[in-house]
Amino acid sequence: MKIDFAKGGGLVPAIIQNADTQQVLMLGYMNAEALARTIETGEAHYWSRSRKILWHKGATSGLVQKIVDLRIDDDQDAVWLKVEVAGSGASCHVGYMSCFYRSIPTGGKPSPELELKFREQSKTFDPDEVYGDAPNPTQL
Amino acid sequence: MKIDFAKGGGLVPAIIQNADTQQVLMLGYMNAEALARTIETGEAHYWSRSRKILWHKGATSGLVQKIVDLRIDDDQDAVWLKVEVAGSGASCHVGYMSCFYRSIPTGGKPSPELELKFREQSKTFDPDEVYGDAPNPTQL
Repeated sequence: MKIDFAKGGGLVPAIIQNADTQQVLMLGYMNAEALARTIETGEAHYWSRSRKILWHKGATSGLVQKIVDLRIDDDQDAVWLKVEVAGSGASCHVGYMSCFYRSIPTGGKPSPELELKFREQSKTFDPDEVYGDAPNPTQL
Repeated sequence: MKIDFAKGGGLVPAIIQNADTQQVLMLGYMNAEALARTIETGEAHYWSRSRKILWHKGATSGLVQKIVDLRIDDDQDAVWLKVEVAGSGASCHVGYMSCFYRSIPTGGKPSPELELKFREQSKTFDPDEVYGDAPNPTQL
Protein backbone atom coordinates (compact mmCIF):
# COMPACT_ATOMS: atom_id res chain seq x y z
CA MET A 1 0.00 0.00 0.00
CA LYS A 2 1.42 3.36 -1.03
CA ILE A 3 -0.89 6.35 -0.70
CA ASP A 4 -0.30 9.38 -2.93
CA PHE A 5 -0.50 12.29 -0.48
CA ALA A 6 1.76 14.51 -2.61
CA LYS A 7 -0.82 15.21 -5.33
CA GLY A 8 -3.14 16.89 -2.80
CA GLY A 9 -0.48 18.84 -0.92
CA GLY A 10 -0.20 16.23 1.83
CA LEU A 11 -3.90 15.38 1.96
CA VAL A 12 -6.24 12.85 0.37
CA PRO A 13 -10.01 13.45 0.15
CA ALA A 14 -12.16 10.95 2.06
CA ILE A 15 -15.73 10.14 1.00
CA ILE A 16 -17.89 9.14 3.97
CA GLN A 17 -20.95 6.97 3.34
CA ASN A 18 -23.45 5.66 5.92
CA ALA A 19 -23.19 1.85 5.63
CA ASP A 20 -26.88 1.38 6.55
CA THR A 21 -28.67 4.13 4.61
CA GLN A 22 -26.05 4.38 1.80
CA GLN A 23 -26.33 8.17 2.09
CA VAL A 24 -23.14 10.13 1.46
CA LEU A 25 -22.55 12.06 4.69
CA MET A 26 -19.53 14.28 4.14
CA LEU A 27 -16.23 14.78 2.40
CA GLY A 28 -13.24 15.03 4.72
CA TYR A 29 -9.49 15.22 4.26
CA MET A 30 -6.82 12.97 5.75
CA ASN A 31 -3.10 13.50 6.09
CA ALA A 32 -0.83 10.51 6.67
CA GLU A 33 -1.37 10.60 10.44
CA ALA A 34 -5.17 10.83 10.16
CA LEU A 35 -5.25 7.85 7.79
CA ALA A 36 -2.86 5.87 10.03
CA ARG A 37 -5.06 6.48 13.09
CA THR A 38 -8.17 5.58 11.10
CA ILE A 39 -6.57 2.28 10.05
CA GLU A 40 -5.31 1.50 13.56
CA THR A 41 -8.41 2.43 15.55
CA GLY A 42 -11.17 1.64 13.05
CA GLU A 43 -12.66 5.10 13.70
CA ALA A 44 -12.55 8.01 11.26
CA HIS A 45 -9.90 10.67 11.86
CA TYR A 46 -9.48 13.73 9.65
CA TRP A 47 -7.23 16.68 9.12
CA SER A 48 -9.16 19.89 9.65
CA ARG A 49 -8.04 22.33 6.96
CA SER A 50 -9.65 25.30 8.75
CA ARG A 51 -8.42 24.52 12.27
CA LYS A 52 -5.18 22.85 11.12
CA ILE A 53 -5.44 20.03 13.63
CA LEU A 54 -5.95 16.27 13.64
CA TRP A 55 -9.62 15.66 14.29
CA HIS A 56 -11.15 12.50 15.76
CA LYS A 57 -14.69 12.74 14.37
CA GLY A 58 -17.19 12.53 17.22
CA ALA A 59 -14.74 13.48 20.00
CA THR A 60 -16.92 16.48 20.90
CA SER A 61 -20.34 15.44 19.59
CA GLY A 62 -20.23 11.70 20.34
CA LEU A 63 -21.10 11.06 16.67
CA VAL A 64 -18.13 8.71 16.17
CA GLN A 65 -17.80 7.08 12.73
CA LYS A 66 -16.89 3.38 13.01
CA ILE A 67 -15.32 1.94 9.85
CA VAL A 68 -17.19 -0.90 8.13
CA ASP A 69 -15.09 -0.80 4.96
CA LEU A 70 -12.15 1.39 3.95
CA ARG A 71 -11.58 1.53 0.20
CA ILE A 72 -8.83 3.11 -1.89
CA ASP A 73 -9.10 4.13 -5.52
CA ASP A 74 -7.07 3.05 -8.54
CA ASP A 75 -4.39 5.73 -8.37
CA GLN A 76 -4.40 5.71 -4.53
CA ASP A 77 -5.11 9.39 -3.97
CA ALA A 78 -8.65 9.14 -2.51
CA VAL A 79 -10.43 6.95 0.04
CA TRP A 80 -14.05 5.90 0.53
CA LEU A 81 -15.25 4.94 4.02
CA LYS A 82 -18.43 3.04 4.77
CA VAL A 83 -19.23 3.88 8.38
CA GLU A 84 -21.66 3.26 11.19
CA VAL A 85 -22.40 6.53 12.96
CA ALA A 86 -22.93 6.50 16.75
CA GLY A 87 -25.81 8.36 18.42
CA SER A 88 -28.32 10.11 16.18
CA GLY A 89 -26.39 9.21 13.05
CA ALA A 90 -25.83 12.82 12.07
CA SER A 91 -22.53 13.79 10.50
CA CYS A 92 -22.84 17.46 9.66
CA HIS A 93 -21.82 19.90 12.38
CA VAL A 94 -24.62 22.29 11.43
CA GLY A 95 -27.13 19.63 12.54
CA TYR A 96 -28.17 17.72 9.43
CA MET A 97 -27.65 13.98 8.80
CA SER A 98 -25.51 14.74 5.75
CA CYS A 99 -23.43 17.81 4.93
CA PHE A 100 -24.98 17.49 1.46
CA TYR A 101 -28.48 18.60 2.54
CA ARG A 102 -29.13 20.83 -0.50
CA SER A 103 -29.39 20.20 -4.24
CA ILE A 104 -28.33 22.33 -7.19
CA PRO A 105 -31.10 22.33 -9.84
CA THR A 106 -29.85 21.13 -13.22
CA GLY A 107 -30.97 21.89 -16.77
CA GLY A 108 -30.54 25.67 -16.72
CA LYS A 109 -27.74 28.20 -16.76
CA PRO A 110 -25.80 28.34 -13.49
CA SER A 111 -25.73 31.77 -11.84
CA PRO A 112 -25.21 33.29 -8.39
CA GLU A 113 -29.01 33.68 -8.17
CA LEU A 114 -29.62 29.95 -8.68
CA GLU A 115 -31.53 28.81 -5.61
CA LEU A 116 -30.51 25.63 -3.81
CA LYS A 117 -33.25 23.15 -2.82
CA PHE A 118 -33.29 21.78 0.72
CA ARG A 119 -33.40 17.96 0.80
CA GLU A 120 -33.41 17.58 4.58
CA GLN A 121 -36.25 19.38 6.29
CA SER A 122 -35.08 19.41 9.89
CA LYS A 123 -31.90 19.30 11.90
CA THR A 124 -31.21 16.26 14.07
CA PHE A 125 -29.56 18.28 16.83
CA ASP A 126 -28.94 21.85 17.90
CA PRO A 127 -25.30 22.68 17.13
CA ASP A 128 -25.19 25.32 19.89
CA GLU A 129 -26.14 22.71 22.50
CA VAL A 130 -23.60 20.17 21.27
CA TYR A 131 -20.64 22.38 20.46
CA GLY A 132 -21.37 25.48 22.59
CA ASP A 133 -18.85 28.15 21.82
CA ALA A 134 -16.34 25.74 20.25
CA PRO A 135 -15.26 26.80 16.77
CA ASN A 136 -17.06 25.02 13.97
CA PRO A 137 -15.28 21.92 12.66
CA THR A 138 -15.59 23.25 9.13
CA GLN A 139 -15.38 26.76 7.79
CA LEU A 140 -18.68 28.21 6.63
CA MET B 1 -25.50 29.63 -5.04
CA LYS B 2 -21.86 30.53 -4.56
CA ILE B 3 -19.36 27.72 -4.92
CA ASP B 4 -16.03 28.00 -3.11
CA PHE B 5 -13.50 27.04 -5.78
CA ALA B 6 -10.71 29.09 -4.17
CA LYS B 7 -10.12 26.71 -1.25
CA GLY B 8 -9.14 23.89 -3.64
CA GLY B 9 -7.03 25.97 -6.01
CA GLY B 10 -9.88 26.44 -8.52
CA LEU B 11 -11.32 22.94 -8.12
CA VAL B 12 -13.98 21.24 -6.01
CA PRO B 13 -13.97 17.48 -5.40
CA ALA B 14 -16.99 15.60 -6.78
CA ILE B 15 -18.23 12.35 -5.23
CA ILE B 16 -19.91 10.11 -7.81
CA GLN B 17 -22.46 7.55 -6.62
CA ASN B 18 -24.46 5.08 -8.72
CA ALA B 19 -28.11 6.02 -8.09
CA ASP B 20 -29.27 2.41 -8.50
CA THR B 21 -26.65 0.36 -6.66
CA GLN B 22 -25.65 3.17 -4.23
CA GLN B 23 -22.01 2.21 -4.85
CA VAL B 24 -19.49 5.05 -4.81
CA LEU B 25 -17.89 4.96 -8.26
CA MET B 26 -15.16 7.59 -8.30
CA LEU B 27 -13.93 10.91 -7.03
CA GLY B 28 -13.49 13.58 -9.70
CA TYR B 29 -12.64 17.26 -9.71
CA MET B 30 -14.59 20.12 -11.25
CA ASN B 31 -13.52 23.63 -12.09
CA ALA B 32 -16.16 26.34 -12.63
CA GLU B 33 -16.60 25.40 -16.30
CA ALA B 34 -16.96 21.66 -15.60
CA LEU B 35 -19.60 22.35 -12.95
CA ALA B 36 -21.43 24.80 -15.23
CA ARG B 37 -21.55 22.24 -18.07
CA THR B 38 -22.69 19.55 -15.64
CA ILE B 39 -25.55 21.79 -14.45
CA GLU B 40 -26.53 22.81 -17.99
CA THR B 41 -26.34 19.41 -19.68
CA GLY B 42 -27.28 17.09 -16.81
CA GLU B 43 -24.21 14.98 -17.64
CA ALA B 44 -21.05 14.82 -15.54
CA HIS B 45 -18.08 16.88 -16.71
CA TYR B 46 -14.76 16.99 -14.89
CA TRP B 47 -11.43 18.74 -14.93
CA SER B 48 -8.67 16.23 -15.54
CA ARG B 49 -5.77 17.18 -13.27
CA SER B 50 -3.34 14.91 -15.15
CA ARG B 51 -4.32 15.91 -18.71
CA LYS B 52 -5.30 19.49 -17.77
CA ILE B 53 -8.40 19.47 -19.93
CA LEU B 54 -12.16 19.62 -19.50
CA TRP B 55 -13.44 16.07 -19.65
CA HIS B 56 -16.97 14.96 -20.60
CA LYS B 57 -17.11 11.59 -18.83
CA GLY B 58 -18.09 8.89 -21.32
CA ALA B 59 -17.09 10.84 -24.45
CA THR B 60 -14.61 8.10 -25.40
CA SER B 61 -16.01 5.05 -23.59
CA GLY B 62 -19.75 5.74 -23.94
CA LEU B 63 -20.08 5.37 -20.16
CA VAL B 64 -21.83 8.73 -19.78
CA GLN B 65 -22.97 9.69 -16.27
CA LYS B 66 -26.48 11.19 -16.26
CA ILE B 67 -27.24 13.30 -13.19
CA VAL B 68 -30.12 12.14 -10.99
CA ASP B 69 -29.31 14.49 -8.10
CA LEU B 70 -26.57 17.08 -7.69
CA ARG B 71 -25.89 17.98 -4.05
CA ILE B 72 -23.66 20.61 -2.49
CA ASP B 73 -22.26 20.55 1.03
CA ASP B 74 -22.64 23.03 3.88
CA ASP B 75 -19.60 25.18 3.10
CA GLN B 76 -20.08 24.77 -0.65
CA ASP B 77 -16.67 23.40 -1.51
CA ALA B 78 -17.64 19.81 -2.50
CA VAL B 79 -20.39 18.20 -4.59
CA TRP B 80 -22.06 14.78 -4.53
CA LEU B 81 -23.60 13.43 -7.74
CA LYS B 82 -26.05 10.56 -7.92
CA VAL B 83 -25.81 9.27 -11.47
CA GLU B 84 -27.15 6.71 -13.90
CA VAL B 85 -24.28 5.23 -15.89
CA ALA B 86 -24.83 4.34 -19.55
CA GLY B 87 -23.67 1.04 -21.05
CA SER B 88 -22.09 -1.52 -18.73
CA GLY B 89 -22.30 0.85 -15.77
CA ALA B 90 -18.56 0.88 -15.21
CA SER B 91 -16.88 4.09 -14.17
CA CYS B 92 -13.24 3.25 -13.67
CA HIS B 93 -11.03 3.55 -16.73
CA VAL B 94 -9.02 0.50 -15.69
CA GLY B 95 -12.16 -1.62 -16.21
CA TYR B 96 -13.83 -2.00 -12.83
CA MET B 97 -17.33 -0.77 -11.90
CA SER B 98 -15.87 1.49 -9.22
CA CYS B 99 -12.43 3.08 -8.97
CA PHE B 100 -12.57 1.96 -5.32
CA TYR B 101 -12.19 -1.76 -6.07
CA ARG B 102 -9.74 -2.48 -3.23
CA SER B 103 -9.96 -2.26 0.57
CA ILE B 104 -7.35 -1.28 3.14
CA PRO B 105 -7.48 -3.74 6.09
CA THR B 106 -8.05 -1.94 9.42
CA GLY B 107 -7.08 -2.82 12.99
CA GLY B 108 -3.31 -3.06 12.50
CA LYS B 109 -0.37 -0.76 11.95
CA PRO B 110 -0.32 0.79 8.47
CA SER B 111 2.85 0.08 6.50
CA PRO B 112 4.03 -0.01 2.87
CA GLU B 113 3.78 -3.82 3.09
CA LEU B 114 0.08 -3.74 4.03
CA GLU B 115 -1.71 -5.72 1.33
CA LEU B 116 -4.86 -4.34 -0.26
CA LYS B 117 -7.85 -6.69 -0.65
CA PHE B 118 -9.63 -6.85 -4.01
CA ARG B 119 -13.40 -6.29 -3.70
CA GLU B 120 -14.21 -6.63 -7.40
CA GLN B 121 -13.12 -9.91 -8.92
CA SER B 122 -13.33 -9.13 -12.61
CA LYS B 123 -13.16 -6.20 -14.99
CA THR B 124 -16.28 -5.21 -16.92
CA PHE B 125 -14.38 -4.20 -20.04
CA ASP B 126 -10.93 -4.31 -21.55
CA PRO B 127 -9.45 -0.81 -21.30
CA ASP B 128 -7.18 -1.43 -24.32
CA GLU B 129 -10.21 -2.17 -26.52
CA VAL B 130 -12.14 0.89 -25.35
CA TYR B 131 -9.39 3.47 -25.13
CA GLY B 132 -6.75 2.01 -27.46
CA ASP B 133 -3.61 4.09 -27.28
CA ALA B 134 -5.38 7.12 -25.77
CA PRO B 135 -3.74 8.32 -22.57
CA ASN B 136 -5.44 7.12 -19.40
CA PRO B 137 -8.02 9.56 -18.01
CA THR B 138 -6.35 9.38 -14.61
CA GLN B 139 -2.72 9.12 -13.68
CA LEU B 140 -1.68 5.76 -12.26
